[in-house]
Amino acid sequence: MPSPSGPDPTRRSERSRRAILTAAVELLGETGYNELTIEAIAARAGVGKQTIYRWWSGKGAVILDALSDAALAVDASMPDTGDIRTDLYAIIRPTVAELADPRLSATSRALSIETLSDEALAEQVRDRLLRPQLDAVKDRLRAAQLADQVRADVDLDQAVELLFGPMYYRWMFRTGPLSQEYADDVVDLALAAFGIARA
Amino acid sequence: MPSPSGPDPTRRSERSRRAILTAAVELLGETGYNELTIEAIAARAGVGKQTIYRWWSGKGAVILDALSDAALAVDASMPDTGDIRTDLYAIIRPTVAELADPRLSATSRALSIETLSDEALAEQVRDRLLRPQLDAVKDRLRAAQLADQVRADVDLDQAVELLFGPMYYRWMFRTGPLSQEYADDVVDLALAAFGIARA
Repeated sequence: MPSPSGPDPTRRSERSRRAILTAAVELLGETGYNELTIEAIAARAGVGKQTIYRWWSGKGAVILDALSDAALAVDASMPDTGDIRTDLYAIIRPTVAELADPRLSATSRALSIETLSDEALAEQVRDRLLRPQLDAVKDRLRAAQLADQVRADVDLDQAVELLFGPMYYRWMFRTGPLSQEYADDVVDLALAAFGIARA
Repeated sequence: MPSPSGPDPTRRSERSRRAILTAAVELLGETGYNELTIEAIAARAGVGKQTIYRWWSGKGAVILDALSDAALAVDASMPDTGDIRTDLYAIIRPTVAELADPRLSATSRALSIETLSDEALAEQVRDRLLRPQLDAVKDRLRAAQLADQVRADVDLDQAVELLFGPMYYRWMFRTGPLSQEYADDVVDLALAAFGIARA
């Protein structure tokens, strides 16, 4: 027997929310961030524009939620083979490859623009998208520190930025190639800074 | 006796160009990049909007020219005291201090947004604003390499990005404080990567 008040509004909201986020990710892949509009997301999701604006301030906020949901679904933990160099290659190579791909990096580009333009969104990008990855790498470096593979006096917050900062800079300002060889060089240079000479 | 064809049009153009660039820099300091408009620049410079659009594609391009002129006026060469650590402190401390200041870094923010949004402008920002500074630091590191203060196998392009990348990352994603202590740590960590232990 249907409830006299109709379908549960919470479940209906959750269904709309998922439809909107799915539509946003699909359209992002099809058209890229610049061409993405709230109108197109609403049409694809089968909701009204005002439904989206009730929950989100704009397309940056919608994409942030969509990517956070996706990130939560992926295990953020790092591999731990016992060899820090092997494990850092495994995390930095795909990150560089993603930045080297204009299609895959379109989202990073979009979120970087929003981060630079919107203070509130910047904090969310940092806390919901970047932090989980940075913390996973930091945990792995802490284990390496305990195993005497990283100097004890290395600040681990600075250490993760030494890994991610140079490649973001190179990607953002296009100062050089983003090849796998470069990815490995980034790791080797950082490890030299952490006190580990190349074998 | 005035020339029958009136004032020299090249000189008149140069005077307008300078007035526009000066107005742009003044307004940037007063209102910030987001509020900056071509209309306001034109009004301040005493020219028509169409004069600006004849020479520039938008405010990003005007600001880039204004800053390139200013950069040319500053000597891009590095100090060379013979001690690479001292010299790197001298260049990295003010760079971090500028990024830490919301007013001073508004321009970097604006140019970063334009760089991420506009491919043609990205190349100009890199070649006209970043390259001169990166090359000066690279030359200083090359001298340190010849003086056996930096390992011979260090790639100097990667070396300069190891200095500038982490602080841009921290500034952009607000992952930590931009203090003078941090600036010195960046230099010390990079020098450790280049093969120089802290004295």
